[in-house]
Amino acid sequence: MTIALERLQALGLQLPSPTMAIANYLPYQIVEHEIYVSGQLPLRDGQVVYQGLLGDELTVAEGYQAARLCALSALGQIASAAGSLENIQIIRVGGFVASAAGFTEQSQVLNGASDLLVAVLGERGRHARVAVGVAALPRNAAVEVEIMARIIAGTD
Amino acid sequence: MTIALERLQALGLQLPSPTMAIANYLPYQIVEHEIYVSGQLPLRDGQVVYQGLLGDELTVAEGYQAARLCALSALGQIASAAGSLENIQIIRVGGFVASAAGFTEQSQVLNGASDLLVAVLGERGRHARVAVGVAALPRNAAVEVEIMARIIAGTD
Amino acid sequence: MTIALERLQALGLQLPSPTMAIANYLPYQIVEHEIYVSGQLPLRDGQVVYQGLLGDELTVAEGYQAARLCALSALGQIASAAGSLENIQIIRVGGFVASAAGFTEQSQVLNGASDLLVAVLGERGRHARVAVGVAALPRNAAVEVEIMARIIAGTD
Repeated sequence: MTIALERLQALGLQLPSPTMAIANYLPYQIVEHEIYVSGQLPLRDGQVVYQGLLGDELTVAEGYQAARLCALSALGQIASAAGSLENIQIIRVGGFVASAAGFTEQSQVLNGASDLLVAVLGERGRHARVAVGVAALPRNAAVEVEIMARIIAGTD
Repeated sequence: MTIALERLQALGLQLPSPTMAIANYLPYQIVEHEIYVSGQLPLRDGQVVYQGLLGDELTVAEGYQAARLCALSALGQIASAAGSLENIQIIRVGGFVASAAGFTEQSQVLNGASDLLVAVLGERGRHARVAVGVAALPRNAAVEVEIMARIIAGTD
Repeated sequence: MTIALERLQALGLQLPSPTMAIANYLPYQIVEHEIYVSGQLPLRDGQVVYQGLLGDELTVAEGYQAARLCALSALGQIASAAGSLENIQIIRVGGFVASAAGFTEQSQVLNGASDLLVAVLGERGRHARVAVGVAALPRNAAVEVEIMARIIAGTD
């Protein structure tokens, strides 16, 4: 078992089966060494498990868990694209938090994604990030996370 | 006439004249083989033809048409940048849907863009995608679509 | 003093000290020649100086200044990443404007960022852009700006 998968197991997590292409877009697109993962929702067994607005129906702690779940789905897509997580560098994370008026803790919510990426990939999990609060998300998801990663030579 | 232009014609569409640079930004930026198209609004003859919020003033069917029109504008920009649509691979679509509280069908709206890209470019039209619901868009547009594409060798 | 720094000085501006990494994400990520700068807030001395919603608490003129300040912070990050601003081409600007219902002048607000980039970098400051209106931003910032730039050979 590879280092990244051992770390996931130590966290009590496993990579979800990557969801299939829906409609005319792809779960991810690869260009040379770069992987563009489509926006991931906080899914478990195909269901959106965190729904509604932060600052209204959900707490920051719940939003953190939602963002973590989005990042876990993205790791599943990246592993599917690259064949492994051992040679992956995360480049950019785009985080969208469904936010009630006046909710301004999008950074704290998105830390759920950033923390998981670093817990699993170590230094290669660090990334540039943009975090914003949006009016609503598909399927009433609380958080959506988009990731751009790169396949690099060598391992951890 | 090329394959992509024939497909457009069969859909009863033609590429719009690319809009000019407005202010200090560009309609697109090329870096090596990659084309970054600026956010496109649902324009016809320079007018935003779908205005207002989904889930309030506009139906999903109207939003779908708006997203399609944004993608058509983007194809016009890409053709202008690359000289042709024959050697284009779509990489990433960022879709922003002006959304009233509680509107969560952003994916269905953005399918208007994704479906057009695949109808015109075939497999090369498939892409990674992020779809979110925003509070408001420039010029009261209902949808805004940003596209990143790549010029590849060879044809369809 | 380099051309870009002279232009900044002529504008009465100086590059801010780049803010440090917060949590598990980076202020910027470099991949080969490309620099992905994390979303920048309108900071001065570490404080968010433009807070609240455009179209409610803030005027377009204030939003323009906020976007300019975000771009200045991004230039600070880019200079830190590349060692200089002389060999920088701006590729893409993502602009997020905290917007009250019905506010649709996000483009005018974001011109504050675009105008500064061109004032400092000349033609190399022009870029593709996406501008949207969001529900809320971290730390109640009025504007957040994300920039992707490229290190190119040669100078102005």
